[in-house]
Amino acid sequence: MPELSKRRIRKAGLPPGTLVHVGDRKTEAVKITVIDYDESNFEQKDITKIEECYPFKDKPTVSWINVDGIHEVETIEKIGKKYGIHPLLLEDILNTEQRPKTEDFDDYLFLVLKMLSFDEERRGVNTEQVSLILGPNYVISFQEREGDVFNPVRDRIRNAKGRIRKMGADYLAYTLLDSIVDGYFLILERVGDKIEGLEEDLISNPDEKTLQTIHYLKREMIFLRRSIWPLREVISGISRKESNLIRESTEIFLRDVYDHTIQVIDTIESFRDTVSGMLDIYLSSLSNRMNEVMKVLTIFASIFIPLTFVAGIYGMNFANMPELGWKWGYFGALAIMAGIGISMLVYFKKKHWL
Amino acid sequence: MPELSKRRIRKAGLPPGTLVHVGDRKTEAVKITVIDYDESNFEQKDITKIEECYPFKDKPTVSWINVDGIHEVETIEKIGKKYGIHPLLLEDILNTEQRPKTEDFDDYLFLVLKMLSFDEERRGVNTEQVSLILGPNYVISFQEREGDVFNPVRDRIRNAKGRIRKMGADYLAYTLLDSIVDGYFLILERVGDKIEGLEEDLISNPDEKTLQTIHYLKREMIFLRRSIWPLREVISGISRKESNLIRESTEIFLRDVYDHTIQVIDTIESFRDTVSGMLDIYLSSLSNRMNEVMKVLTIFASIFIPLTFVAGIYGMNFANMPELGWKWGYFGALAIMAGIGISMLVYFKKKHWL
Amino acid sequence: MPELSKRRIRKAGLPPGTLVHVGDRKTEAVKITVIDYDESNFEQKDITKIEECYPFKDKPTVSWINVDGIHEVETIEKIGKKYGIHPLLLEDILNTEQRPKTEDFDDYLFLVLKMLSFDEERRGVNTEQVSLILGPNYVISFQEREGDVFNPVRDRIRNAKGRIRKMGADYLAYTLLDSIVDGYFLILERVGDKIEGLEEDLISNPDEKTLQTIHYLKREMIFLRRSIWPLREVISGISRKESNLIRESTEIFLRDVYDHTIQVIDTIESFRDTVSGMLDIYLSSLSNRMNEVMKVLTIFASIFIPLTFVAGIYGMNFANMPELGWKWGYFGALAIMAGIGISMLVYFKKKHWL
Amino acid sequence: MPELSKRRIRKAGLPPGTLVHVGDRKTEAVKITVIDYDESNFEQKDITKIEECYPFKDKPTVSWINVDGIHEVETIEKIGKKYGIHPLLLEDILNTEQRPKTEDFDDYLFLVLKMLSFDEERRGVNTEQVSLILGPNYVISFQEREGDVFNPVRDRIRNAKGRIRKMGADYLAYTLLDSIVDGYFLILERVGDKIEGLEEDLISNPDEKTLQTIHYLKREMIFLRRSIWPLREVISGISRKESNLIRESTEIFLRDVYDHTIQVIDTIESFRDTVSGMLDIYLSSLSNRMNEVMKVLTIFASIFIPLTFVAGIYGMNFANMPELGWKWGYFGALAIMAGIGISMLVYFKKKHWL
Amino acid sequence: MPELSKRRIRKAGLPPGTLVHVGDRKTEAVKITVIDYDESNFEQKDITKIEECYPFKDKPTVSWINVDGIHEVETIEKIGKKYGIHPLLLEDILNTEQRPKTEDFDDYLFLVLKMLSFDEERRGVNTEQVSLILGPNYVISFQEREGDVFNPVRDRIRNAKGRIRKMGADYLAYTLLDSIVDGYFLILERVGDKIEGLEEDLISNPDEKTLQTIHYLKREMIFLRRSIWPLREVISGISRKESNLIRESTEIFLRDVYDHTIQVIDTIESFRDTVSGMLDIYLSSLSNRMNEVMKVLTIFASIFIPLTFVAGIYGMNFANMPELGWKWGYFGALAIMAGIGISMLVYFKKKHWL
Repeated sequence: MPELSKRRIRKAGLPPGTLVHVGDRKTEAVKITVIDYDESNFEQKDITKIEECYPFKDKPTVSWINVDGIHEVETIEKIGKKYGIHPLLLEDILNTEQRPKTEDFDDYLFLVLKMLSFDEERRGVNTEQVSLILGPNYVISFQEREGDVFNPVRDRIRNAKGRIRKMGADYLAYTLLDSIVDGYFLILERVGDKIEGLEEDLISNPDEKTLQTIHYLKREMIFLRRSIWPLREVISGISRKESNLIRESTEIFLRDVYDHTIQVIDTIESFRDTVSGMLDIYLSSLSNRMNEVMKVLTIFASIFIPLTFVAGIYGMNFANMPELGWKWGYFGALAIMAGIGISMLVYFKKKHWL
Repeated sequence: MPELSKRRIRKAGLPPGTLVHVGDRKTEAVKITVIDYDESNFEQKDITKIEECYPFKDKPTVSWINVDGIHEVETIEKIGKKYGIHPLLLEDILNTEQRPKTEDFDDYLFLVLKMLSFDEERRGVNTEQVSLILGPNYVISFQEREGDVFNPVRDRIRNAKGRIRKMGADYLAYTLLDSIVDGYFLILERVGDKIEGLEEDLISNPDEKTLQTIHYLKREMIFLRRSIWPLREVISGISRKESNLIRESTEIFLRDVYDHTIQVIDTIESFRDTVSGMLDIYLSSLSNRMNEVMKVLTIFASIFIPLTFVAGIYGMNFANMPELGWKWGYFGALAIMAGIGISMLVYFKKKHWL
Repeated sequence: MPELSKRRIRKAGLPPGTLVHVGDRKTEAVKITVIDYDESNFEQKDITKIEECYPFKDKPTVSWINVDGIHEVETIEKIGKKYGIHPLLLEDILNTEQRPKTEDFDDYLFLVLKMLSFDEERRGVNTEQVSLILGPNYVISFQEREGDVFNPVRDRIRNAKGRIRKMGADYLAYTLLDSIVDGYFLILERVGDKIEGLEEDLISNPDEKTLQTIHYLKREMIFLRRSIWPLREVISGISRKESNLIRESTEIFLRDVYDHTIQVIDTIESFRDTVSGMLDIYLSSLSNRMNEVMKVLTIFASIFIPLTFVAGIYGMNFANMPELGWKWGYFGALAIMAGIGISMLVYFKKKHWL
Repeated sequence: MPELSKRRIRKAGLPPGTLVHVGDRKTEAVKITVIDYDESNFEQKDITKIEECYPFKDKPTVSWINVDGIHEVETIEKIGKKYGIHPLLLEDILNTEQRPKTEDFDDYLFLVLKMLSFDEERRGVNTEQVSLILGPNYVISFQEREGDVFNPVRDRIRNAKGRIRKMGADYLAYTLLDSIVDGYFLILERVGDKIEGLEEDLISNPDEKTLQTIHYLKREMIFLRRSIWPLREVISGISRKESNLIRESTEIFLRDVYDHTIQVIDTIESFRDTVSGMLDIYLSSLSNRMNEVMKVLTIFASIFIPLTFVAGIYGMNFANMPELGWKWGYFGALAIMAGIGISMLVYFKKKHWL
Repeated sequence: MPELSKRRIRKAGLPPGTLVHVGDRKTEAVKITVIDYDESNFEQKDITKIEECYPFKDKPTVSWINVDGIHEVETIEKIGKKYGIHPLLLEDILNTEQRPKTEDFDDYLFLVLKMLSFDEERRGVNTEQVSLILGPNYVISFQEREGDVFNPVRDRIRNAKGRIRKMGADYLAYTLLDSIVDGYFLILERVGDKIEGLEEDLISNPDEKTLQTIHYLKREMIFLRRSIWPLREVISGISRKESNLIRESTEIFLRDVYDHTIQVIDTIESFRDTVSGMLDIYLSSLSNRMNEVMKVLTIFASIFIPLTFVAGIYGMNFANMPELGWKWGYFGALAIMAGIGISMLVYFKKKHWL
């Protein structure tokens, strides 16, 4: 979390609209791909010079310009100028700490959201910012790096599967949104697995590390919630605003994504409740173990302290101690000790401490 | 909970509207029953070929098509096509993880809700998804498996009891809704019994297992809440929307179901509070027991340690220890020890530790 | 709480509007009393045959029909038919688990609320359901059993005290409502006394029973809240709806009852906070007592363990132990022991453990 | 808190609008003062007969009638009749447990609020109810007893300082409101001092009494919140309602009081959070002290128990114990003991227990 | 926090609109700077006599009058009179405890907000009140002392960088707002660092001081929240109100600042959750350490108490104790003791206490 503010400050003091990339620096080249299609045609090409994607602006076919990498500020700036995007929005695209949001301009709709992936190494959730610009017949998507959840969409367009080739740019934007939200379910599954594993740990062998995992999961829940919660407003926002860029036939699909988002949020809330409950279990298992330790100590001390006292008595050196001279004195003393010991055991047995 | 996301992912990456059954696979055949009636006629038949239920669409009588089993995707698809149901809704029907919701189309109303049953074996609540489609003169209901809470409704239609035969399809839909919500009360009773049992355990003999049951009940409350809470919005939604499929005379009945739903939610909240309170009792009973253990230890140690010390003194081997030679020295020492012991007991008595 | 759902299930599966008494079975006869009045006339009579109260429906005078006992379903049904009350409302009257609510029909207004009384024996709050039907010139009240908070109202009507004889049926309904809400204050007083008593227990002598009382009070607060909270909406509902059954002059009186209801709810919330605070005090008093026990143990053990060790040294049987032969060896050893003991006491004194 | 309901019940069962003084009985005479002014004139007089204040109703100058003491019911009743005040409002004036509220009639505006003062003796906050009636050209204020925060207002009117003499009755009412809210800040300061003092206690020397003070402060926060919170709605209510009794020029002043009220509520919330945080600190300081006690016990026991064991070995009376005959046996044994003791100390040092 | 109310009371009892400086007294002179510019001209001058800034009111160029220091009441009053500012607003400017708020007058817009800075010495957050008055072509800013976050804005104006020289006074006001909100991110970074440092402390070496830091951070979070939260309403307020002082082109910039404010609030909430989680970790680490202490005690006591008992037996002085005469008796006893000791160690090993 603290990293959030750290990156952000590179910008403090600059005039608004100044384009500065706020995020981890990267060195790979930005990769731009254009997919252009209508019901009968399909064309996909990798672009090396940014100017190559200018003509797609006014083509009647649906064009999807995907930009992988946002660290080359001039590239983003050129696209922004050509497509008439407000400088503040370009700033939002470059600032990877942007909260999910939507802005509705007359001739385009702007969306920022978070794509999640599971980092197998550190077993945690990574977030990548995706910005979408929906124009009348084009969609521009910006991502932080290559690799995304959009491949099935590309295949569907290429193979003319489903209704995607028959529909407009708004449906394409919806499909991308849907892919990202579908990806959340994969993440939730991984997190769910982690919680299950933790639950088993908690019952079999809770230790200091368990507590740290609980704490870590709690923070991850906060992080997930913060990434996804605003999406709720974003999607209900674009349905409500009745931008003329969204056709009526697409609206039911948006309601569907909205539904899924709610389901994701619901699940995160359940996870939070579960993790909170685990803390209670952990704390009371600490108390239980303390109880057990105390019982062992109490049993040992309570049995042997009186016995040692008896032994102490007959270790005294008084001249006149009649018992010492008795023939069976020693064995009598042992018998008395055994008696005390056994009655203590019976007493603890009755108290259910044994 | 984690299972939720597990099943869901079978779908990630497919185009929206692709019909895939998301839920436990089943092998039994799908069973379709049609009940067709008006005030004077009644007909019930089991359908083997899906096409047999097509003619009911346009019959003026009220038809109730009940589908038990949603794992045969083609069957659902055929019904969907015939009755003009939007592919996304068919997707919702097939996805058993769908949240309760309602969609209002011009010529039909779509409802998803959860039917609950109590699993006697694992002593937990099971959930089954029921989807309802209310058309002008038909109701189609989809369930995950055979066995439901609708039998009294069937009897009432057959025997022409109550006002059901005189009313339209909207009243039938209400009756089904009402049966499901009535079923919630049965579940609440079982859960209430479990909570009562737990409460007795908590007072008589709280142990680690009690804590786990509390935790389990807490999660079951979260689960119940998640299944029923959205129903509140759903029912108030269909009353508010003033779909022309709902006659005015049926609205008061819907308000009644709404009332019952609120009552169910209220009870769940009370249960949650009760279960949370139990955790407090459990934790403080742990502290109380620790206190008891500590007291026993303290009493034993505090009485015998001084006594053992006295015995230790007279066990010393100094050449010049006058007491050792006294005739009543030994008995005097015993008397002193008894005095110390008794005064300790009196002290603890005064402290209310005995 | 669990009883709630238990009673309710007698009904599950019956057609809506079926009249079944849901509540504790009773054997006494239902008692019906009619009070009929206008500014100059007053008549009160006990009714034995239900038909006797029919003529009051259309009399221009204000009639108050009070029904004590709702376990005779046919009686309720007959009244319902004569006065044109919707079957679902009759069902609500008979179901004593109904949540406070209001329904506004064109020619009558329906109210359900809870009358509270304090059970001296089990020292807890009892609840009784009261249903009111307000017609143009009549009020019908249904109660579960004889005995209510309405006697002052009866007296006021009989003695023509206050403005009640000059006002219409809506004012009578308000007066009944006001009596019930006034009764809540009496209950709050008793509960307040109980909380005060508990608070004293908590400070003087907290034990396991205190915890159970706290828990019990917490649940009673939940129960009170659940009984009274919805009344807020009910009363604001009838003021807002501007039913033509409520004259404008009565509205300010309704606002006044609303005010009182808010005050009751406020007080319950304060009580809840207070009771929650008590749990904290109880738990920390447990910790405090544990501390005290530990201190006693620590003091005893820490003083005598070193002393016993010194005694142990001179109890050793080495041939060559010079101190043993010294004349003042024994007394020297005793002096050393006393020194150790006293310095330990000083140390604990400094630590404020004594 | 429980006192609240106790006083209230004197009224239960009486017809609404019955004037009964609900509050602590008092014996001093009611004191009525009238201040009458316009831009050029000023008159102040103490009134002995209530009728003397009747003529001020219709004078064009602004009149402020202040009533100290509300236990003489007839006086209030007479004023009420003359100024046409609704009986229910008179009831509210007399009931000192009334929640802050506002009622808007055509020709007057009614306000109830709480004036706070700090009781130096019991070091707690006292509350006094102030009711204001704002007519076209008069303000009537009712207080429970003499002594208030209005003296600066009286001075300002008398000395024609500020704009008060140029403005109407609505501005006078605002000024009174403002004085009361300003008084809250004084109270908050005292409470803040108490919290600071408590905080120091908590760090230097927390004991059972600290806990009780925390609990007491918590309840005082609840009490303050309950007294002031509704004022928020009251003030925003009179701004919003656009009563024609409030001139437009006064509205900005009302917004200012509203601002201050929010600030007071904010501060109370901060105080609550702070006090809650103190409970956490107190509880964990208990745990810390327990830890310290345990450590002392553990160190003593763990060092001397092994030593005593060694002494015990050489106290055994076996015939054949070679070490006993050694010349340096005794000193060797002492050396071993010293070694064990020192290594234990080193071990605990390493564990940071010393 | 308590200081808040302390300063405030200097004012209680004064007529509203009385200008009194509420804040820390200062002795430096008030410093006034004017920056006047349009697209082609730029002028900056320090003002010594307040009258010098009067002419800027009606100049068509954009003027920014910055006042450092608000403790000279007459200066503020003069500016107020010249620029026609309502006395209540001047009061707000002088009262440094004012909550962030906005007031919309016809010819100017008034804003109060908090500028934050990090005090390196006491490692805590300081707050400074900034008031802005936005007129048609001027902005007046009031600060408590010299030194602010506005220098980059001054540079931008001077160097004609960005769009600022081409835009009006509303854009200047936005830029100042933006600078302040950008400054919040710097503060959050510092606070984030502190939280991270605390987290490391918590894991490596938690002590009483850690708890106090947690408590301190919790209060700082409350303080930050209280300073920034109202800004949310303030900014959304000026966007919504559609004052004609805000040009449409500036609105998107305001939405952008709003976005950043939400992000700051989000981060504070995350920090709060994190700090709360730390308290849980701290408390359970206390329990863990207690457990460890207990284990050491239990292990030592449980091993040596039985051994000492055995030694005690053979220290008894009975005449007839056959074992004492055995040749290997002593070594046998030692062997038995070793056996007991080792089996205890094995037992504790098995319990995972070693």
